[in-house]
Amino acid sequence: MQTTEDPVKYEQWKSEIERVRKIRDDSIIKEYLIPEDKLPPADQLNMMNVPRESGIMTEKELTITETPVYILAGEIAEGKYTAVETLTAFLKRATMAQQLLNCVTEFLADEAMKLAESLDKTFKETGKTVGPLHGIPLSIKEHLWVAGKEANAGFVGFIGRVVDEDNLQLSILKKAGVVPFARTNEPQSLMHADSYNNIFGMTWNPHNRLLTAGGSSGGEGSLVGFYGSSFGIGSDIAGSIRNPAGFNGCYGYRPTAQRITVKGRSGAGAGQITLLPSIGPFTQSADDLELYMKTVTDGKPWEVDCTIPIMPWRKVETPKSLTIGVMKEDGIVYPLKPVFRALDHAIKKLEKAGHKVVTWDPLNSKEIYEMALKSFFADGGTAQKKALEISGEPWLELTKYALSHAKPLSGLEQWEQNAIRNASRIAWFDKMNKEGIDIIMCPVSFGPAAISHECEHWAYTAIFNVLDMPGSVFPTGITVDPQIDAEDTFKPRTEYEARQRDKYLRAPEKYIDAPINLQLIGRQFRDEEVLAYTKVIASAVLGE
Amino acid sequence: MQTTEDPVKYEQWKSEIERVRKIRDDSIIKEYLIPEDKLPPADQLNMMNVPRESGIMTEKELTITETPVYILAGEIAEGKYTAVETLTAFLKRATMAQQLLNCVTEFLADEAMKLAESLDKTFKETGKTVGPLHGIPLSIKEHLWVAGKEANAGFVGFIGRVVDEDNLQLSILKKAGVVPFARTNEPQSLMHADSYNNIFGMTWNPHNRLLTAGGSSGGEGSLVGFYGSSFGIGSDIAGSIRNPAGFNGCYGYRPTAQRITVKGRSGAGAGQITLLPSIGPFTQSADDLELYMKTVTDGKPWEVDCTIPIMPWRKVETPKSLTIGVMKEDGIVYPLKPVFRALDHAIKKLEKAGHKVVTWDPLNSKEIYEMALKSFFADGGTAQKKALEISGEPWLELTKYALSHAKPLSGLEQWEQNAIRNASRIAWFDKMNKEGIDIIMCPVSFGPAAISHECEHWAYTAIFNVLDMPGSVFPTGITVDPQIDAEDTFKPRTEYEARQRDKYLRAPEKYIDAPINLQLIGRQFRDEEVLAYTKVIASAVLGE
Repeated sequence: MQTTEDPVKYEQWKSEIERVRKIRDDSIIKEYLIPEDKLPPADQLNMMNVPRESGIMTEKELTITETPVYILAGEIAEGKYTAVETLTAFLKRATMAQQLLNCVTEFLADEAMKLAESLDKTFKETGKTVGPLHGIPLSIKEHLWVAGKEANAGFVGFIGRVVDEDNLQLSILKKAGVVPFARTNEPQSLMHADSYNNIFGMTWNPHNRLLTAGGSSGGEGSLVGFYGSSFGIGSDIAGSIRNPAGFNGCYGYRPTAQRITVKGRSGAGAGQITLLPSIGPFTQSADDLELYMKTVTDGKPWEVDCTIPIMPWRKVETPKSLTIGVMKEDGIVYPLKPVFRALDHAIKKLEKAGHKVVTWDPLNSKEIYEMALKSFFADGGTAQKKALEISGEPWLELTKYALSHAKPLSGLEQWEQNAIRNASRIAWFDKMNKEGIDIIMCPVSFGPAAISHECEHWAYTAIFNVLDMPGSVFPTGITVDPQIDAEDTFKPRTEYEARQRDKYLRAPEKYIDAPINLQLIGRQFRDEEVLAYTKVIASAVLGE
Repeated sequence: MQTTEDPVKYEQWKSEIERVRKIRDDSIIKEYLIPEDKLPPADQLNMMNVPRESGIMTEKELTITETPVYILAGEIAEGKYTAVETLTAFLKRATMAQQLLNCVTEFLADEAMKLAESLDKTFKETGKTVGPLHGIPLSIKEHLWVAGKEANAGFVGFIGRVVDEDNLQLSILKKAGVVPFARTNEPQSLMHADSYNNIFGMTWNPHNRLLTAGGSSGGEGSLVGFYGSSFGIGSDIAGSIRNPAGFNGCYGYRPTAQRITVKGRSGAGAGQITLLPSIGPFTQSADDLELYMKTVTDGKPWEVDCTIPIMPWRKVETPKSLTIGVMKEDGIVYPLKPVFRALDHAIKKLEKAGHKVVTWDPLNSKEIYEMALKSFFADGGTAQKKALEISGEPWLELTKYALSHAKPLSGLEQWEQNAIRNASRIAWFDKMNKEGIDIIMCPVSFGPAAISHECEHWAYTAIFNVLDMPGSVFPTGITVDPQIDAEDTFKPRTEYEARQRDKYLRAPEKYIDAPINLQLIGRQFRDEEVLAYTKVIASAVLGE
């Protein structure tokens, strides 16, 4: 495909890139940076222990950042921590995250500190919190609107576009008491399972700096995975929440599209309605996914967003014994050993906890994934190209890869794709009902986080965007151990499959420590059930 | 456009047409037919008094058929009427309707009588009804599925396609106690504001037999308008419920798309998702619209249909003084005198009742309507043409007209249309909120029911399908009086506008007695509010 690169035009944008990088750099509190001489050696891959070893954070601050929000919010409300000390703890840890992993595009430290102070003042004066999330620091993906800030969505040509209102989920969460303190990175075009762009560069995985943080909400995944935030907002149209939550070992949730609002975001591709985006949380616990969704829903987003139904958060009961359909593969790229270890581990724990585990076939996943790739770029990639053309910026490798799927469809062909979508939704739903499946458990990807720039296969997540089946991801406690995870006897069925798997198989040692999460998929509009069951399942899998 | 007509192929289908016409004719109870010598003279246009004058119906039967369902259901539940006598009354009146107006494609008299007898038996034995609609006869548009019956959707080539399940709304209503007794006519292709096809012919307007019953749910409009049914099910993607409800002087309602299920229907155009169809009621009162919607929603259609949200029927309060935005025209075809009389009458009554009436501009209605016409046939009309091609049947005039809008769009162009749709939805919603408008009142069409084969302008209804704003229609009591409704000094702004209006203006006398209904339009997913306000508004407009 003909790119839109134009070195001459791009030259003129470089000062703009410098300007926003300076905004980012100026927003960093320098005293929270690890001194040069104390930085981990370049060959150290795993960053997870750095905060504890840095000496920058107190034990109390470490505890604060590692406490799930549903507990932390209660502790703040009891006066155990102030909003200011909570914010300070997260600012410290997030500053390290930025230094080590390049996940933040801008800190909002000044505004955040003023807000935290005012929250503390209110609490001191009234003895009351302003809402259920009083004093909880919050991070947010760059393309989701923060009033008065620029939103570039990973496009150099969008730099300078200041938005005048908050993203609606953010706005509701602010009323509930959150303190927005950091904005996070994403890829060029928002269509990589990676987070690399010409403005802020590459975001890395805290468990292994050779690996990608995933994408497109990779900044959130990396930051929350590092415990630099415990309440983050990302977006997902093909896996962009679930992929990075999975790659970075944290919790993430993609709500049913149109269940909660997506009002207030930048990006290319207006008018693509076959696959609708969702906006949802990154957290450090399953309870927090539910807390996030309930809080946003309780804020009645439908009062200002006409595109979503009036559907208050429902109370649901979790059956004592869940029937869990395990879909071990997508029928396109067979999982690698560490993924099977995670699945086997989870199944054993779940059976031990009294749940029923049955087999779930991938059905027409291949057809669905092909349909998704066609539909994302049914305009022939025009929307993306136009956005890239503004600045003439270089096309990154994974942008070229994504747009290699861009073939202009006719209106008729688009209807044919939509018809596949509609029929598949019905078929999967009916089969779940017929077989009495409460929830589907499957990998987030065929393997662990990819080497940066190499992640190409999105099917494990994207098929559920087509099906519009809401999904969470949760950590299993399993991480890649090259000693035992190098084994593989599977015979690839296609060249594509071989290429994807070989990236790992030629050097499994590079993937050391990468966490393996799993995905839980439920029925459309049953967000309550998915999250209630996620709590039970994650607890069983991670428990003794 | 090249038609798909093929006289040789069509010849082979004629026996099939004869076969289904015979099914219809055999289903008629001959003793309920008006004897030839007592039929109204050919030049009598208004059929509304024929049932009373026919001598076929008793006074009690006339009363039953003219009693709104919300009262009738209570009377049946109190034992005032049996299900059998209720059904008999409607079968008599509907038989006359068929004889005079050709609105029924098949009576379900035998099954209905068995069901009514069994309902009576249950009631006699237990003293209880089976549900809130115990014994209420129900009519249903032909393309909506009745298990074990053919559904041809107005296409000769679809004849013989037997469906194996009931439409989901029908299925829920059956559980609530309805007695399905008649299936009703629709146009070739389902895309006329008229109801004429090569299988069953033309359906006429009971108020004036020169005029169309409208469409595409014209069979329902005609039958319910004639009081041959008081609970009917139609479908609407551009006005197909509201147009015939308006033209025939009854009540109709198009729910928000995806609010209640559309599962179980035939037609062409799978995969067109820009404009989604709705299925909803035809009734003789505003209360019945609400009763219908509440009953179907109470049946929890989301348990078997994954495409709709879990949104139980909400209780809403009606403000004592509503703020009603009156949109007097669509900015494309200016209304005719009788429509203004209806608007003026309604406004006067509403103001007298203490409501606030303000002006509502048509905003970008023209852009929206153009977008709708493009989007219906973004496949270049392929889906419709394929369906017509099966039999090689002749293209009717209004099919040619509809398909004259069929220009194949590219995927990119379809995205552009969708973007207009999305932006318009937000703009209208935001403006309603900003101006504090509770509901929009506007015409159903620029004029009364058209002469058959002549109705071309769908904008007054179709724009609200694009906007996905739910809408009811209600009678105003105003009908065309050529003595005073011939007047017109408006200077048409376009040739199109002149052509549409001139059809009426060249012979207003032909439109005598045509009822003028109005349309009430509310916010997305606020079906409860629209129907609650419709009750108040219709009652004010029709009251003393």
